[in-house]
Amino acid sequence: MNMSRTSRPRERLVVIGGDAAGMSAASQARRLKGPDELEIVAFERGHFSSFSACGIPYWVGGDVAGRDELIARTPEEHRARGIDLRMRTEVTEIDVAGGRVRARNVDSGAEEWTSYDKLVIATGARPIRPDLPGADSPGVHGVQTLDDGQALLDALAATKGRRAVVVGAGYIGVEMAEAMINRGYEVTVVNRGSEPMSTLDPDMGRLVHRAMEGLGITMVDNAEVTKILTDDDGGVRAVGTQDAEYPADVVVLGIGVQPETALARDAGLPLGDHGGLLTDLAMRVRGHENIWAGGDCVEVLDLVSGRERHIPLGTHANKHGQVIGTNVGGGYATFPGVVGTAVSKVCDLEIARTGLREKDARRAGLRYETVTIESTSRAGYYPNAALMTVKMLAERRTGRLLGVQIVGREGAAKRVDVAAVALTARMTVEEMTALDLGYAPPFSPVWDPILVAARKATAAVRRNAG
Amino acid sequence: MNMSRTSRPRERLVVIGGDAAGMSAASQARRLKGPDELEIVAFERGHFSSFSACGIPYWVGGDVAGRDELIARTPEEHRARGIDLRMRTEVTEIDVAGGRVRARNVDSGAEEWTSYDKLVIATGARPIRPDLPGADSPGVHGVQTLDDGQALLDALAATKGRRAVVVGAGYIGVEMAEAMINRGYEVTVVNRGSEPMSTLDPDMGRLVHRAMEGLGITMVDNAEVTKILTDDDGGVRAVGTQDAEYPADVVVLGIGVQPETALARDAGLPLGDHGGLLTDLAMRVRGHENIWAGGDCVEVLDLVSGRERHIPLGTHANKHGQVIGTNVGGGYATFPGVVGTAVSKVCDLEIARTGLREKDARRAGLRYETVTIESTSRAGYYPNAALMTVKMLAERRTGRLLGVQIVGREGAAKRVDVAAVALTARMTVEEMTALDLGYAPPFSPVWDPILVAARKATAAVRRNAG
Repeated sequence: MNMSRTSRPRERLVVIGGDAAGMSAASQARRLKGPDELEIVAFERGHFSSFSACGIPYWVGGDVAGRDELIARTPEEHRARGIDLRMRTEVTEIDVAGGRVRARNVDSGAEEWTSYDKLVIATGARPIRPDLPGADSPGVHGVQTLDDGQALLDALAATKGRRAVVVGAGYIGVEMAEAMINRGYEVTVVNRGSEPMSTLDPDMGRLVHRAMEGLGITMVDNAEVTKILTDDDGGVRAVGTQDAEYPADVVVLGIGVQPETALARDAGLPLGDHGGLLTDLAMRVRGHENIWAGGDCVEVLDLVSGRERHIPLGTHANKHGQVIGTNVGGGYATFPGVVGTAVSKVCDLEIARTGLREKDARRAGLRYETVTIESTSRAGYYPNAALMTVKMLAERRTGRLLGVQIVGREGAAKRVDVAAVALTARMTVEEMTALDLGYAPPFSPVWDPILVAARKATAAVRRNAG
Repeated sequence: MNMSRTSRPRERLVVIGGDAAGMSAASQARRLKGPDELEIVAFERGHFSSFSACGIPYWVGGDVAGRDELIARTPEEHRARGIDLRMRTEVTEIDVAGGRVRARNVDSGAEEWTSYDKLVIATGARPIRPDLPGADSPGVHGVQTLDDGQALLDALAATKGRRAVVVGAGYIGVEMAEAMINRGYEVTVVNRGSEPMSTLDPDMGRLVHRAMEGLGITMVDNAEVTKILTDDDGGVRAVGTQDAEYPADVVVLGIGVQPETALARDAGLPLGDHGGLLTDLAMRVRGHENIWAGGDCVEVLDLVSGRERHIPLGTHANKHGQVIGTNVGGGYATFPGVVGTAVSKVCDLEIARTGLREKDARRAGLRYETVTIESTSRAGYYPNAALMTVKMLAERRTGRLLGVQIVGREGAAKRVDVAAVALTARMTVEEMTALDLGYAPPFSPVWDPILVAARKATAAVRRNAG
């Protein structure tokens, strides 16, 4: 038995990218196959492995004490588990026909080809940096990597002024607004859209707008940043839009990311409309038997609209890695898709969404009913019962749940999970009215806010069922 | 058109019971049919209508300022909506063949028959009072009605001693333990079972036991109360068990309730094994075209085990009332059943359960895998990330989710809702591993605790699939 096992030629798995998806895949593959069966080589161009990019705003804001807390597993820990993780080593080419990758040591410049039997692409995403005068100033900060976070913290320590301008009002933008508030800055958020949080419908984004103003944040909507004004020593002075200039001692960019797929594109691998790699349900790159891809560099199936989307989020990346590692390791697992759940907060304001917005539903060719209700996180008579607004979309006639958005205070955001499961199960809003959700006065009104919304949506569907 | 409407003979709906189920039914029927079509007469033997019994522990404990906050709608408010609600009037007989009920004014003793076209039985539940020496002492308190709550508060104000003994360690027992702690009492909980919270498996109940001890509560398990010792002026002195005596200045009973169905039984209506009325999915009493029943006096279908259960809980009562009112009012609605979700807390300890315990699964003839995991409410590095323990049961071979139990701190309990929806949708634990639950560091680890449990349960199911 042992002989036949050791005599089998050892396979090599190459992983490009040392963060969530890549290292989850490597770790899971290692759990299923020992070093005598599978060699694992992983390349990471940065200084850190397996870190929580989602945690950077909380580190910058002071909620998290230090950078190392955001590192789930160091390179040494990966190596101790039998993964040959090569840091500061960037893959510069994938030779699909030859089954090999070329990697360059970022510090020495030395290049080397490494052959693979199986390849995992987990190259992540890169922040969109506006092509503007002044955008490359050292006073302009992204928050994508731990190095970015450290550079921002160093800048804050060195800056005397207390005015921060955050460009962008999506998740990163609002979280960075909170971080800068927590650091004692006067914060202005400059946003291209009509409201912050364009992942919500504008009526719900309006609630976020008002709440952020209530936190003392200056909200500038419908603003196109045209330039970043710098002073003589390279620091920033202001952010200029088509209409005005907003004085700034520090500028934070939170305008989103796009899939980092230049390597994959050059290798002729299939990309989707959003620039992400396209995979099958086992996270295998379409048309390629021995190449998998996961994390922020892939597109995922939206189970509600039936279309591909790009959703850079650590929780998906970890799931992808788990699925890939299982399949690479000889097991079987799939990633069926997403329903588009996201939660966030700005100070004590909680924001959540899942499924389709109105414009997504229209784009998918769906007719829908929409209802909006107000309710509370606890029984109305219980201390600290916090108001929340829940918007629900249901398909016209069938009543199938299409989406939920929530804006509220403590206890609001994670209620969206109920809707996420209901979307996955393709429940109707009427079915949802009977859901047996946990009730006790400290945890919910006798009708949970999700049930209140489902009841109202059911009434709307029935009214227009004719 | 108007003529034919007004010339139709007006129907009379009689409702027995003026609390959640009964008055929800009456209100919903009234929304659908005006007073010219439907006369509604409701009888309530107590002093209050539509109150939150679940809120009583928080009123007693001081979290809720006053009794009136627990009243959702007063008799006057119901009457203003066209419901002839007769307070302090107890129905003493249902004459099914004659289509009428006999009601007695509690104060005057006057009796009267009232005929009905449609009848709703919402007689609720009554607390189990042990048949013990001393159990009728004025120092022994139930907490079922607002009058009970007021009597307990009056007793606390009059009592100098600070020792409270709570008999029973189910939801009411643990909530009353918290209430008495909040009132500054030394609390002893005397419990017949091997652990508190017998709605959990004993291993999870053990965690509650330890946490309650950590709150300074004296926990006495495996204890059968044999007597309540009183002093000469009728006050309590101690609670006696088979083994010991526990000094007490006040005794609170939290040993559960049973369906209040004597009226229904006497009328020949069908009762189940737990003593509750049996209904169809439209909440109509089985075999009776014009009688509905809902709330704490009925048995409900457990969708996981396929068996009837008795679950007295305000949230079900409200849903029943809504369904009954819709059907009585000429619409159509059903109550498909429950999955057995319940949440509770003792100070900062949160407790939740849904679906089957191990013994429920065995009783239902199911083989199962069980896993238990520890995780946190937030990303591990985020402030106030609180530990929680999640136990998950899955059916052997099929992997279908059977139940989830959670014991933890802030942010633990309502996570059970995800499992409640998954149970309703008959998901497998493997399907659950892919659920798109909300992730951001302040709200969840990158793998939500429910997903961590689902992953481990999936592994257990796969391991034993052969």
